[in-house]
Amino acid sequence: METSRLEKLNRAFTPKCVVVVGAKKENDYSFLRAVSTLKGNCYSVQIDPNEIPGIEEMGIKNFSGLAEIHEPIDYVICAVPRGISPRIVADCIKNDVAAVTLYTSGFAETQTEDGIRLSGDITEMAKAANLNLIGPNCMGIFNPSVGLRFGPEQYTDAKGPVGFISQSGSNAGGFVQSGYLNGVYATKVVSFGNGYVLDAADFLEYFAQDEDTKIIGAYIEGVPRWRPFFDTLKEVAKKKPVIIWKGGRTGVGARMTSSHTGSLAVDSALWDAAMRQCGVIQASNLEQLIDVAKGLIHIGPFTGTRMALTGGAGGQSVAIADAFADAGLDVPLLSKSSYEKIASFFVLIGSSFNNPIDMGQNRREFIAIMDILAEDQNIDAVVMQMSFVMSLRNPQRMEETIATLLEFKEKSNKPLTLAMGTNFPPDQAQAVHDLEVRFREHGIPSYPSFERAALAIKKLTDYYKFHSE
Amino acid sequence: METSRLEKLNRAFTPKCVVVVGAKKENDYSFLRAVSTLKGNCYSVQIDPNEIPGIEEMGIKNFSGLAEIHEPIDYVICAVPRGISPRIVADCIKNDVAAVTLYTSGFAETQTEDGIRLSGDITEMAKAANLNLIGPNCMGIFNPSVGLRFGPEQYTDAKGPVGFISQSGSNAGGFVQSGYLNGVYATKVVSFGNGYVLDAADFLEYFAQDEDTKIIGAYIEGVPRWRPFFDTLKEVAKKKPVIIWKGGRTGVGARMTSSHTGSLAVDSALWDAAMRQCGVIQASNLEQLIDVAKGLIHIGPFTGTRMALTGGAGGQSVAIADAFADAGLDVPLLSKSSYEKIASFFVLIGSSFNNPIDMGQNRREFIAIMDILAEDQNIDAVVMQMSFVMSLRNPQRMEETIATLLEFKEKSNKPLTLAMGTNFPPDQAQAVHDLEVRFREHGIPSYPSFERAALAIKKLTDYYKFHSE
Repeated sequence: METSRLEKLNRAFTPKCVVVVGAKKENDYSFLRAVSTLKGNCYSVQIDPNEIPGIEEMGIKNFSGLAEIHEPIDYVICAVPRGISPRIVADCIKNDVAAVTLYTSGFAETQTEDGIRLSGDITEMAKAANLNLIGPNCMGIFNPSVGLRFGPEQYTDAKGPVGFISQSGSNAGGFVQSGYLNGVYATKVVSFGNGYVLDAADFLEYFAQDEDTKIIGAYIEGVPRWRPFFDTLKEVAKKKPVIIWKGGRTGVGARMTSSHTGSLAVDSALWDAAMRQCGVIQASNLEQLIDVAKGLIHIGPFTGTRMALTGGAGGQSVAIADAFADAGLDVPLLSKSSYEKIASFFVLIGSSFNNPIDMGQNRREFIAIMDILAEDQNIDAVVMQMSFVMSLRNPQRMEETIATLLEFKEKSNKPLTLAMGTNFPPDQAQAVHDLEVRFREHGIPSYPSFERAALAIKKLTDYYKFHSE
Repeated sequence: METSRLEKLNRAFTPKCVVVVGAKKENDYSFLRAVSTLKGNCYSVQIDPNEIPGIEEMGIKNFSGLAEIHEPIDYVICAVPRGISPRIVADCIKNDVAAVTLYTSGFAETQTEDGIRLSGDITEMAKAANLNLIGPNCMGIFNPSVGLRFGPEQYTDAKGPVGFISQSGSNAGGFVQSGYLNGVYATKVVSFGNGYVLDAADFLEYFAQDEDTKIIGAYIEGVPRWRPFFDTLKEVAKKKPVIIWKGGRTGVGARMTSSHTGSLAVDSALWDAAMRQCGVIQASNLEQLIDVAKGLIHIGPFTGTRMALTGGAGGQSVAIADAFADAGLDVPLLSKSSYEKIASFFVLIGSSFNNPIDMGQNRREFIAIMDILAEDQNIDAVVMQMSFVMSLRNPQRMEETIATLLEFKEKSNKPLTLAMGTNFPPDQAQAVHDLEVRFREHGIPSYPSFERAALAIKKLTDYYKFHSE
């Protein structure tokens, strides 16, 4: 990417001056409310006399054109009818705007003559003038650390290491929302829709050089320019973990991408081969993408696949073992000396001398078992099931459990992951969430089920293995 | 099953007199507290003078032996050290107890000489005397409608159509708990552990003839007597839907079942073939079992695989389409005339004329679309995504949406299923749950994700297809 384009993109991702063109009461001035948290100046451009009073009531200064704004414009969000969009693009060029997001849809994805013609017009204009055009048919940029949002409910009270590139506005919004709940916070997010000018390859390049972005996630529907995308991806994936969720994997999915962003189907065997070759982590949906990102945030490089599973008993431990084996991970027996140590204080007969292993009857035993797991040469990582029933009935014991887990985390470099279960009443959801937040703050990720924990860990070990070879 | 055995089992599943042998303060008299809700008489047999005062403080009458109880004993729960268990079994035989659950573990599953010898002893005694011995190493019977529980937190305020047979106590408890949260209520549940006398085949037979049980679920670790199990299953599966979760599918899982209930591994290809031949629905874990049971409860026989998906927009609708196609369901275009009808009131361009389809901008449009889906000959069933953000911001609109869905349910015999999403803050979990309960009361099942809805529906259509051929 040329330096001038990069500099301008940087300005747009961290803008000091944002202009919303075409704000409307109809959608409750959604974009204006979204950017109201910006650490910088927000203006409106609107010529409809019916809309202007409402905008001014919000305390936003309204202009009749970009030229009237006498400061450098870093970022324009444009939500005008599609027929008017070429005029706004021209205005952005004339006023040297650093980047513009075209929210408007109804272009080539509609497969109408008008739509296709308009697509050609705006693309040509933007390319000729080197304008950073994002979209059309997208939500643009989210950057919580400067208060730039594309939805009025989005957070600004957290920032994290994940850059997210999305061809879909709703999936970009889903990432912001679900990421917040899961502690997978964003550096920056961009929804780029039809991607006529700036596309996935450009944003991969941008996030690769962005120092705050340590992990890159992407939702991609199609790749019109395959070679530059693949070449960029290959380079970027060497530097930072990249997780890609491909939308339109299936026939009907691809039919939807075609009408959504005008994307053509990509042969799925070709796609899978390319992703494997680049060492990209694939996700089938948003949940998996968030799960893997959560793992990457909290668990440093590790390639061992031998899991110690703990916390379940009886038939539950069978289910846990099946879940991890299904995911392709190993659940070996502990070393003989570990079982000997456990036998010295543990009087239970049977399944506790196996793996999954029982976590003991009291704090002393639990600490001893965690110490044994930290030392055991047969074990690379530990996954523990948390019992809520216990935690809610006996808060003191829960505090002790937490303390022991945090000690393990301090002492051992073996990854520790928790499975929280979903089998609790809805009125306990907040307590469970608070507990998860507490563990995350200490670098311990948690998942609702063993299945999800196992899948995320498997994808992590595959990733670290690929890039360590 | 002989009539006398069946009659006795019936007495045990709906007991008027229950005796807990070996109640202990150590576990807070768990079984006594569990049966405290029984509509009938509960007694204790305990000879340890240290334990008796605590038992009597609970208002439970204690005896020093079964012979002292001068009424027919329908069900005994026995939690004594393994060495004492033969004496209790003998006492049960002598006093003509209808059935006994042996909670005690430490038998052949430990692969110790003592354990194996004791297993032989109690099995021989029970078989010779035709005693209904449940276990050992299990939790026994749960029947909410008579207030018989095996855990003091279990419900008695609901009953449903699902009979659950489990080789594991923790998974039986998991079914009770998760089933309650999901509205998948039990007729009766039995945890039978090592199954030396009564095993899966017996309980399949029992639930097959039990009129209240409309659906049978099972968690099975091993099948020592393959032929009677298979023959019974084949017959039972013709009469009622049977969902089986096989524990120990994998190598490590099987290692765990061996130490848990002493079950031998079953070749998984053989198992799968047998299940297919019987038309049994297979589940990989508790979640899937509950999901399928929920579908069976609310959705009557249907074999059509052509889904209309509605409620998502843009990239979300791509994800939805992929999820259903991945599960092996069809997501066809609507008929031409349906799109023509939609076009008469719908002005959006592009993805709304596809499937997944947009649900409209207002109530009038939404009703019209649901009517069109009810009529469309290309569509067999409807799955809709509920938006919580909408519901919480606009309760009136949510009420209108609910009314429209209930009207659809009244008018159309096409199954309607909801996907609720998991992407909401924990403080809204209760509101979401309440909404799900409301829909269930009107026969509309809901799932957290499209993936889970799709998998459950696919398993249902496969099941109904198999048994309609």
